[in-house]
Amino acid sequence: MNSFGNIFRVSIFGESHGAAIGITIDGCPPGVDFAEPDMESDILKRMPGAAGTTPRKESDIPEILSGTYNGKTTGAPLTIIFRNSNTISSDYDKLRTMPRPGHADLTGMQKYKGFNDPRGGGHFSGRITLPLVAAGALAKKVLKGINIQSRIVTIAGKADYSGILEEVIAAGDSAGGVIEVKMSNVPAGLGEPFFNSFESCISHIVFSVPAVKGIEFGSGFAAAGMRGSEHNDSIISADGKTATNNAGGINGGITNGNEVVFRVAVKPTPSIKMEQQTVNLETGQTGSLIIDGRHDACIALRAPVVFEACAAIAAADLLLINRSYSL
Amino acid sequence: MNSFGNIFRVSIFGESHGAAIGITIDGCPPGVDFAEPDMESDILKRMPGAAGTTPRKESDIPEILSGTYNGKTTGAPLTIIFRNSNTISSDYDKLRTMPRPGHADLTGMQKYKGFNDPRGGGHFSGRITLPLVAAGALAKKVLKGINIQSRIVTIAGKADYSGILEEVIAAGDSAGGVIEVKMSNVPAGLGEPFFNSFESCISHIVFSVPAVKGIEFGSGFAAAGMRGSEHNDSIISADGKTATNNAGGINGGITNGNEVVFRVAVKPTPSIKMEQQTVNLETGQTGSLIIDGRHDACIALRAPVVFEACAAIAAADLLLINRSYSL
Amino acid sequence: MNSFGNIFRVSIFGESHGAAIGITIDGCPPGVDFAEPDMESDILKRMPGAAGTTPRKESDIPEILSGTYNGKTTGAPLTIIFRNSNTISSDYDKLRTMPRPGHADLTGMQKYKGFNDPRGGGHFSGRITLPLVAAGALAKKVLKGINIQSRIVTIAGKADYSGILEEVIAAGDSAGGVIEVKMSNVPAGLGEPFFNSFESCISHIVFSVPAVKGIEFGSGFAAAGMRGSEHNDSIISADGKTATNNAGGINGGITNGNEVVFRVAVKPTPSIKMEQQTVNLETGQTGSLIIDGRHDACIALRAPVVFEACAAIAAADLLLINRSYSL
Amino acid sequence: MNSFGNIFRVSIFGESHGAAIGITIDGCPPGVDFAEPDMESDILKRMPGAAGTTPRKESDIPEILSGTYNGKTTGAPLTIIFRNSNTISSDYDKLRTMPRPGHADLTGMQKYKGFNDPRGGGHFSGRITLPLVAAGALAKKVLKGINIQSRIVTIAGKADYSGILEEVIAAGDSAGGVIEVKMSNVPAGLGEPFFNSFESCISHIVFSVPAVKGIEFGSGFAAAGMRGSEHNDSIISADGKTATNNAGGINGGITNGNEVVFRVAVKPTPSIKMEQQTVNLETGQTGSLIIDGRHDACIALRAPVVFEACAAIAAADLLLINRSYSL
Repeated sequence: MNSFGNIFRVSIFGESHGAAIGITIDGCPPGVDFAEPDMESDILKRMPGAAGTTPRKESDIPEILSGTYNGKTTGAPLTIIFRNSNTISSDYDKLRTMPRPGHADLTGMQKYKGFNDPRGGGHFSGRITLPLVAAGALAKKVLKGINIQSRIVTIAGKADYSGILEEVIAAGDSAGGVIEVKMSNVPAGLGEPFFNSFESCISHIVFSVPAVKGIEFGSGFAAAGMRGSEHNDSIISADGKTATNNAGGINGGITNGNEVVFRVAVKPTPSIKMEQQTVNLETGQTGSLIIDGRHDACIALRAPVVFEACAAIAAADLLLINRSYSL
Repeated sequence: MNSFGNIFRVSIFGESHGAAIGITIDGCPPGVDFAEPDMESDILKRMPGAAGTTPRKESDIPEILSGTYNGKTTGAPLTIIFRNSNTISSDYDKLRTMPRPGHADLTGMQKYKGFNDPRGGGHFSGRITLPLVAAGALAKKVLKGINIQSRIVTIAGKADYSGILEEVIAAGDSAGGVIEVKMSNVPAGLGEPFFNSFESCISHIVFSVPAVKGIEFGSGFAAAGMRGSEHNDSIISADGKTATNNAGGINGGITNGNEVVFRVAVKPTPSIKMEQQTVNLETGQTGSLIIDGRHDACIALRAPVVFEACAAIAAADLLLINRSYSL
Repeated sequence: MNSFGNIFRVSIFGESHGAAIGITIDGCPPGVDFAEPDMESDILKRMPGAAGTTPRKESDIPEILSGTYNGKTTGAPLTIIFRNSNTISSDYDKLRTMPRPGHADLTGMQKYKGFNDPRGGGHFSGRITLPLVAAGALAKKVLKGINIQSRIVTIAGKADYSGILEEVIAAGDSAGGVIEVKMSNVPAGLGEPFFNSFESCISHIVFSVPAVKGIEFGSGFAAAGMRGSEHNDSIISADGKTATNNAGGINGGITNGNEVVFRVAVKPTPSIKMEQQTVNLETGQTGSLIIDGRHDACIALRAPVVFEACAAIAAADLLLINRSYSL
Repeated sequence: MNSFGNIFRVSIFGESHGAAIGITIDGCPPGVDFAEPDMESDILKRMPGAAGTTPRKESDIPEILSGTYNGKTTGAPLTIIFRNSNTISSDYDKLRTMPRPGHADLTGMQKYKGFNDPRGGGHFSGRITLPLVAAGALAKKVLKGINIQSRIVTIAGKADYSGILEEVIAAGDSAGGVIEVKMSNVPAGLGEPFFNSFESCISHIVFSVPAVKGIEFGSGFAAAGMRGSEHNDSIISADGKTATNNAGGINGGITNGNEVVFRVAVKPTPSIKMEQQTVNLETGQTGSLIIDGRHDACIALRAPVVFEACAAIAAADLLLINRSYSL
C-alpha cells in the first residue's frame, strides 16, 4: 500500500536508521532529462540548517539505480536511493517502553505487533519525505510548463514569525505552521470525476506526509462562512479564466485553467525537550518522559518543498491519465 | 478511475438525469445481513425536505442487483442502483452556452471535449452521493462495533444558523457550512504507513464529494498555531488512550484507539437565483446568467450522512487490509 | 477484486439467477459512438442455439444505465446491465449437499462459508461472460482499426467435429475445444514491461472465463520443442514485420506490429447427464449424482466471441496506457 | 505498471547493465524471519553453471535495504537490490542498428522512442528475474506450510534431454523446454472470482517472465480433447479431495485443496551463435547478424525456481486477500 498514482506511480521504502531510503517511479515517460544533479536544488530546500531545524546532518546524496540511460529516462522504473549514514540509534532505545506523545511509536507497535523498526521513527520518520522530494524533482520535469511554488504562510500562528520562533526554540518547545502551494499554467481538464478528483489526489499524498493536520483548496474553510454570491468566481473568458479564484483552480474536481492553490496545516513537532507524560508499557503506569535526540523545533520550515513534490507527483499522474482520453 | 479502495472497493456510476445511478461494492465479506431496508435510514437523512434544500423530490429507492442471497452478502460484487425519475432536463439547455460559475459545466466540457452529459450536472451532480450513502450503509455493517456520528458545526459561519439561513433563502442566495464526523470504538492499527495513511484515505474519498473545500483532523488548522507542549496528547494507558485528542485519533497515519474526529468545509451551493457573470461560449462575450432549476440553498444541510458514508467506506477498506497482516 | 485494467477498467457483477448481471466500464474515452444495438452482433454470437448449446434461452437484452449521451460515450463510467428472467432455480437445490464435480459448487461454499448464491452457479456461472462480451463490443470501438477475429480450432480434439459432437450429445456427455484469436493491425508498442506484458494482461482476463485450462501465444507449447534457429522470426522491414510469426506478434511483452495470435484450451462442460461420483456434505459419504438442468454440451462453441472480448478489453487498456507515454 | 499484487505487492526495477536491479515487496506481514541468507538456496538454483547456461557469472548477492529489523520483517516495504558488476556492454552496441530476431530490441525502441537502455536487453533482460526469485523466497515464508516444487518436464521436446542439449550447444543453437510447478498443502478458498481467479493471477506473473509462450493448469490443453465424463474429478471427501486432478487444484478460479499443478512452455533463447536475418534500421535493408555476447543456450534450465517464485508471490497475495474476508 506504499504506492501512489495510477500511471506515474511512486513506491516508497526505507527507515530512518536502516541501510537506505528510496523511491521507485514507474510510468515516467521516456526521454526526460534526469540525473542526480537535477534533484539537488529541491533536496537543498528540504535540508536542515536554519534556526529551528534539526542538527542531524545527512549528506542526502541521491543515487539513481535504474531507469535512466545517457542522462534521460528510459520509460522503465526509475529507482533512487539515499544511504543513511548519520544515525544515532541509541537515542531511541527507551521509546519501546515509553512511547512519545504525538508520535507513531505506540501505533507502530500496535499495528505491527512490535516488529516495526523503532529507530528514528523507522518508516514513520519525516526523513522518508526525502525520496518524495527526489521524485518530485522528476515529476516537475514531466510537468514542464507548469510552475509550482510554495511559501510559509505562518509559523506558530504568525506571518512574521522569527521572534516567536526564537522563543519556542529557547523553551525547548516546538511550533507548527501553514504552508501554501500554488501551481500556475496548469491546463484545464486534469482530475478524474468523483473518486479521483484533483483535490482527492493532492490531499491523499499530502496526508502521507507526517504531521499534516489539514488541507484546504482556494477559499477553503472560509468558504463555509460565505454566500454563493460571494464565493462563485465569475467566468471572464471562453477558456475559463475567472475574476476571482475561490475555487482554487478546480471545479467539479477538475482543473479549470486558473491557478491551483492549496494550504496545508502542519502540527508542531511532537519531539520536544520539555517533560511530557506518557505510559510505561512494561509497568502500565504513567510517567514522565524527556526526549533527547536531534529534532526540528519546527518541521514546517522544511516542508514547503515537500508539498511542492506532492503537488507535482499527483499532477503528473493526472496529466498522464488525462492524455489517454483523446482518441 | 471511479473506484475507491483496495479490498472493500466501491465503483460509482451514473448521471443526474440518466437512466440510473449506482454503485458496486467489491470485496465485502460474506454473511453480512443486508437488504434494501438497511439503507433506508441513511437515505432519509440525505433527503431534501428541510428549509434550504431542493424541491426536487426523488423517490430514492435502492435496488440491489447482485451480491446478496437470502438477505446476506455473498462475497461477490454487490451492485445497488437508483432509477432517476423526476428529471426536468430543459432547465439545463442553456448551460452548454453559458456555463455556471462555480460549477463543473465548463471543466466537464473541457475535459470531455463536449461529450459529457450536461443534464443536471451529469456525472458531476451531487445526486451521485446517493449511491455513496447506500454503500456507506453496508460499510457501517462491516464496521460493526464502530460508531459513526456526524453533526453540523456551522452554517453560513454560525452555529445557531436558522435565522441567517432564512435570510439567505429569501435573498435567493446560498450558504456553506462545516460538518464534523466522529468515529468511536475504532480499533488501533488501521491505516497503512505513508501513502495510505488513515487521513489520506478519508480525505481522498471526502474530496470526491462535490463542494468540499477543506478537511482537518483533530486540532486541524489550529494545530499550526500551537506549541508542541500544548498539542501533544499525553498517553494515559497502555492501550493508547490519551488525555486530550488533538491527534484526532490518528498518529503516524494509524488509528490510536481514541475517537477519530474530522471536520469538512462545504462551500455554498453555486446555483443561486441571483444574477451572475459568466461567458457565452458561442460569442466569447461575457454576459449575465440567472439560474432557474431546483437547487439546494445549502447543500451542507444534507451532507453529514454523506461524510459518514465516506468515513465508513474508507475505514472498512483499511480494516479489511489490516486483517491480512496477522500471519 | 472483480475489476480488470488500469485505465480502461471493467468491473463485473451479478449472479446467474439474481436480479441482473452487468459490467461497468471506467476510463472509456469520450465521443465513441455506442448504443445498445452496437452490442447486438457480438451478443448473438455468444447465444446458444446450435446443437451442443444450452436450451436455456435468455433474451440477453442490454440496457445502458450510464455513461452515454446522445449515442456517444461521455467519458464517465458506463454501466450495462442484463436482467435475468428465464431462471429455474429449483434445479440447483441439491447442489448444496451434493457438489458437482468440476464445478465451483464446493470451492464457492468453502471460500464464502456457505453464503454464496448457489443458484445456477451464482457468480461463477458462465452467464457472467455476457456482460464481458458487451464490454468487448465497446472495447473494439476504442480499438478502431484493429481487427479481432476468432475461430474454433478443434472440438473434442477434431477440427472436423460435427460427427463427434453428435455422439457426445447423444451420450449425455460433454466436449472441450480449442479457440484461436487473431488481432491484426495492432500497433507496435502495446504492453508494459515485466508485470504488465501484453501476454500477462491477455492471459489474466482469459483465465477469468470459466472452463479455461490453458493459453498459448504464437508458437506456444510447440516452442518448447523447437531450436532458436527455427523459432526466431527474421525481421524483414524497419517497422518490425517478420517473415514468420512464432512470436505471435509480441516480443519482450510488447506488440511488434505483426498479427497477435493466441489459442485457448476450454475444458468439457462439467455438467453432464451421466452419473458421477461426489460427496454428500451432510453425511460425508460419497454417492452418485445425476445433473438435470439445462447445460451446454460444449461451452467452447459459444466461447470465441468471449475471447475476442477479452482480447479487446486488455488491448484497449494497454492502448490507452501507452498513449500516456508520449510527452 | 511494474507492480504485481494487491496486498502482497511486488514492484520490480533495474536494467541488466545498470547500477543495480531490485524489487520492493509491500504488504508483507510483520514478524517473518527474513535475512539475506534466506534467499541463498533459491538464488543458487537460478545461477548458471550447468552446460547450456551463460558463462556470465554475477555474484548475485542480495542486499536488503529496508523492511527488516533484527532479522524479521517489520511490515514496512522491503527492498532488495543486487548490484550489477560483470557487464560487458560493448557487446550490445550494434543491436541499436541491427535488432536481434526474437528479442525486445526493436519493440523496446518502438515503445520508448529509442530512449530505452539497450545494454544487455536493459529492463527486458532475463536478469530481472533474479529479484523475482528473491521476492519468491520471502513469499514462500509467508506461505509457510505450503510446499512448492518445480521440475523440468522436457528440454528440446525430450524428457531425457542431455544428449540433444549437447548437440544444440555444439551447433551454437538454442533449445526451449517445459517446466512444471506443483504446490501442495494449498488451502481451499484462494483466488477471487472472475477477474482475479487463481489461474489469472498465476498466469499474469508467469507471462512477465521473458521467453514464456504458454501456460496450462491441470489437464491443460489435453482437456480440450477430453469428454466431461473423463475430465471431471470425482469428489471423494467433504473437504474436497478428488480422485483425479484434471482441475489442477482449482475450480471456478478458486483452490479446492488438492495439489495445484501448472506447466509453462519456454521458448529457445533467441540469442544464438548462428547467422540470422534481420533489418538494418539505418539503411532499411535486411542483412545478416551474428550475436556474440554471453548467453544461455537453454534458458529453461534456470527457469524452474523462477516459476516457483511466481507461484509463491501470486499465492501469497491471494492468501492475504482471502484472510480479509472473515468477519
